[in-house]
Amino acid sequence: MAPGEQTIPVDLGERRYDVRVGAGLLTSLGPTVAAIDDVTRVVVISETTVAELYAQQAAESLESAGLSHERIIFPAGEAHKTLATVSQVLDELFALAPPIDRSSLIVTLGGGVPGDLGGLVAATALRGLRFLQCPTTLLADVDASVGGKTGVDHPAGKNLIGAFHQPIGVLIDVETLRTLPAAELVGGLGECVKHAVIRDAPLLEFIEDHVDDILSVRADVMVELIARNVEIKAAVVVADEREAGERAHLNFGHTIGHAIEAFVGYGEVSHGQAVAFGMVAACRIAVDRGLIEAEAAERVEEVLLRLGLATRIDGLDPNEIWRIMQHDKKTRGGQVRMVLPVMLGAAAVFDDITPHAVQEAVAQLGT
Amino acid sequence: MAPGEQTIPVDLGERRYDVRVGAGLLTSLGPTVAAIDDVTRVVVISETTVAELYAQQAAESLESAGLSHERIIFPAGEAHKTLATVSQVLDELFALAPPIDRSSLIVTLGGGVPGDLGGLVAATALRGLRFLQCPTTLLADVDASVGGKTGVDHPAGKNLIGAFHQPIGVLIDVETLRTLPAAELVGGLGECVKHAVIRDAPLLEFIEDHVDDILSVRADVMVELIARNVEIKAAVVVADEREAGERAHLNFGHTIGHAIEAFVGYGEVSHGQAVAFGMVAACRIAVDRGLIEAEAAERVEEVLLRLGLATRIDGLDPNEIWRIMQHDKKTRGGQVRMVLPVMLGAAAVFDDITPHAVQEAVAQLGT
Repeated sequence: MAPGEQTIPVDLGERRYDVRVGAGLLTSLGPTVAAIDDVTRVVVISETTVAELYAQQAAESLESAGLSHERIIFPAGEAHKTLATVSQVLDELFALAPPIDRSSLIVTLGGGVPGDLGGLVAATALRGLRFLQCPTTLLADVDASVGGKTGVDHPAGKNLIGAFHQPIGVLIDVETLRTLPAAELVGGLGECVKHAVIRDAPLLEFIEDHVDDILSVRADVMVELIARNVEIKAAVVVADEREAGERAHLNFGHTIGHAIEAFVGYGEVSHGQAVAFGMVAACRIAVDRGLIEAEAAERVEEVLLRLGLATRIDGLDPNEIWRIMQHDKKTRGGQVRMVLPVMLGAAAVFDDITPHAVQEAVAQLGT
Repeated sequence: MAPGEQTIPVDLGERRYDVRVGAGLLTSLGPTVAAIDDVTRVVVISETTVAELYAQQAAESLESAGLSHERIIFPAGEAHKTLATVSQVLDELFALAPPIDRSSLIVTLGGGVPGDLGGLVAATALRGLRFLQCPTTLLADVDASVGGKTGVDHPAGKNLIGAFHQPIGVLIDVETLRTLPAAELVGGLGECVKHAVIRDAPLLEFIEDHVDDILSVRADVMVELIARNVEIKAAVVVADEREAGERAHLNFGHTIGHAIEAFVGYGEVSHGQAVAFGMVAACRIAVDRGLIEAEAAERVEEVLLRLGLATRIDGLDPNEIWRIMQHDKKTRGGQVRMVLPVMLGAAAVFDDITPHAVQEAVAQLGT
C-alpha cells in the first residue's frame, strides 16, 4: 500500500470488496488484476475522452503485469448512456477472439457513464462477469463506486434500465481528478455535502476547513475526503444492500433534485448541482417542519456556495416539479417520500410530504 | 390449495419463493397476485401464440380479483429472443401511463422465451421489478421455472446476455400442456430424464412406468412428474445459487448438446432433442471410462426413444463439435468440462475430457 493510500472494505458477505483510494493508483492496475484469481484476460470499457487521457496508462500497467487485454471505447457523454450503446459494446465484446468466458475480467475506466454502463455490460454478459471499477470523477469516486448500481438512461427517465451488480474491487486514483473540469469536481462535492448532512457532522466541518485544498485538488486532502465519503456510503449500503430501508437516506436532495433535472432538461444542469438545489429545498422543508434550526440550513447553503455550487435557480414551475416527483422511479404507488435532515448528521424518511410544502420550497429556490 | 396441487419451496433465503403445480392454476392467477404485498398494478409479458391461447384467461382472473393490468406482447419464436426485443418491451413498459414503479408486478406468461426475456425485462427495469412466472411449456416448467436465470440470445450464442433474477413465485398449470405441440412436450421430457440420471434413479423408473400417461398429458401424472423435477432442480439450485459447483451437474447432456445445436443451427433441432443427443454421447463417454455399465447407458437411450426422442443423428462433424465446445460460455480459460453419470442417479464433473473421447462419442451418434 502506497504512503497515504486508504482501503475501505465494503462488507457484503460473499460479494465483499475493497475500495482503494490513493495518488497514482492507476499505475498499479496491472498488479491488482494479476492478484485476482482465475483471470485469463482483461477487457477495458471506457469512453473517448477518458480513454484519450488514461487508457494508455492503464494498458501499460496491465502489460507490465503480463496481462492480455483489449479495449472497447464508446463515445463520451450522457447522451450515449443508452441500451443501444450497451448493445454495441456487447457486440464488440462477443466479437473478441478467442471468445470471452467467465475467466474474463471487465475493467470500467471513467466517470459515471463508463462505470454504470460498463457495469451493466458486466452484469449481463454471460449472466454476470466480474468487473473492476476505476472511477475518474469525484462523483463516481464517492457515489457510483459503492453500491453495485449499474444502469443506463431511457427517454422516459435516467437510470431506468439497470441491475445491481457488485464490482470485485474499486481503484480510485485521485490524480485523475486533476484533468476533471471544475464544474464536474464541484458536482461531486454536492454528494460529499449530502453524506455529511445525513450521517457525519464532523465531515461537514472537514469540508468547511479545507475548501481551498479541495478546490485545488490537494492529493492528501482528496484521499481523506474521498475515503471518508466512501466509508459513509459503504456503511449505508452494507446495512441495506437492496435499498429497502436505510439506503433511502442517500436520496437526500435527490427527490426534488431529479425533478429539477427533468424539468430543465438532462445535461442543462449537472447532477451534483441539481442535488444541491434539492438539498437546499429539503432543508427548507425541514426548517418549516421544525426538524432543524434555520441556522443549520444556512450552514449547508453556505458551504455549498463556498464550494462553487449555486443555491438559487430561476424559472422553475413548482406545480410541474411536484408532478414529476410523483413519477420518480423510487415512488411506490404514487406516494412521494422524501429524506429530510433531523439534525446536521442525521436524516429520516418522511412519507407525509404535501404538495404545498414542496411547491413552497421550490418557489423559494427562485428568490 | 386445489386437490392434487403440489407446492415446492425454493429456499433461497430472502429470495425464497414457491413453485405451485396443479391443473387449472391459471384461473387462480388473480387471487395469487392479490395476496402479494404492495402490488398496485400488473403487466403481463407474453408472446403472440401463447397470448392468443391464454392471455384472456389470465386477464379474467386478474380482473375478477380487481387488479389493474396491461399486456405487452412480442412476436413468438426463438428468433425474437434478442436484446432488441427487450429494448422494445422496455419502451412499451416505460410508455405505460401512469408510469410503472416499484409496486408494479411483471407476470411472464409462456414458455422459455417469455420467461427468460420477460425475466430479463423484470431484472433490468428500474433495476429490478418483482415478477411472477407462469410457464406454459414442459421445458419451462421443469427447467426455467427454478434458478432465476433470465436471458436472451446473441448472434454469438444462446443466452449470452442475461442476469440472475429470482421470481417471487411460479404458477404451473399443467392444463396448458394440452395445447403444446408434441415435439415441444417431448423436448421437455429430455430434461426430465436428465434430472433422473444425475440425481434420482426412482424418477427414471416413474418415467419408464408412465410413458403413455405422460405422452397423453394425464393431469395427475403430469403434476407428479413436474413436481418431482422441480424438487430436484430446486435442491440443486438452493445448494449452489450462483452456479459455482453442484449446479454444474444440470449441464449433463448440455455441453455436447449445445455444440450440436450450434452446429446444425438453432431451431433446426429442439433444445430438448439436442440435450438428448448430448446425454447419449455423455453416457457413451462414461461407459468408455468405466464409470457406468453399458446396460445403464442403454436404459437411458431406451427411455428417450420411448418418449419420442431421437438418439441418433447423421451429418455431425466431430472435430467441429469439439471446437464449438471449447467456446461454450461455461468454459473457463478454454478448458472443456463435462458432467458424466457415475451411476444412474448420480453425476460428477470431469475436467480431463479429451478431444478423442468426445469425437468418438459424437461419431457414434451417427451409427
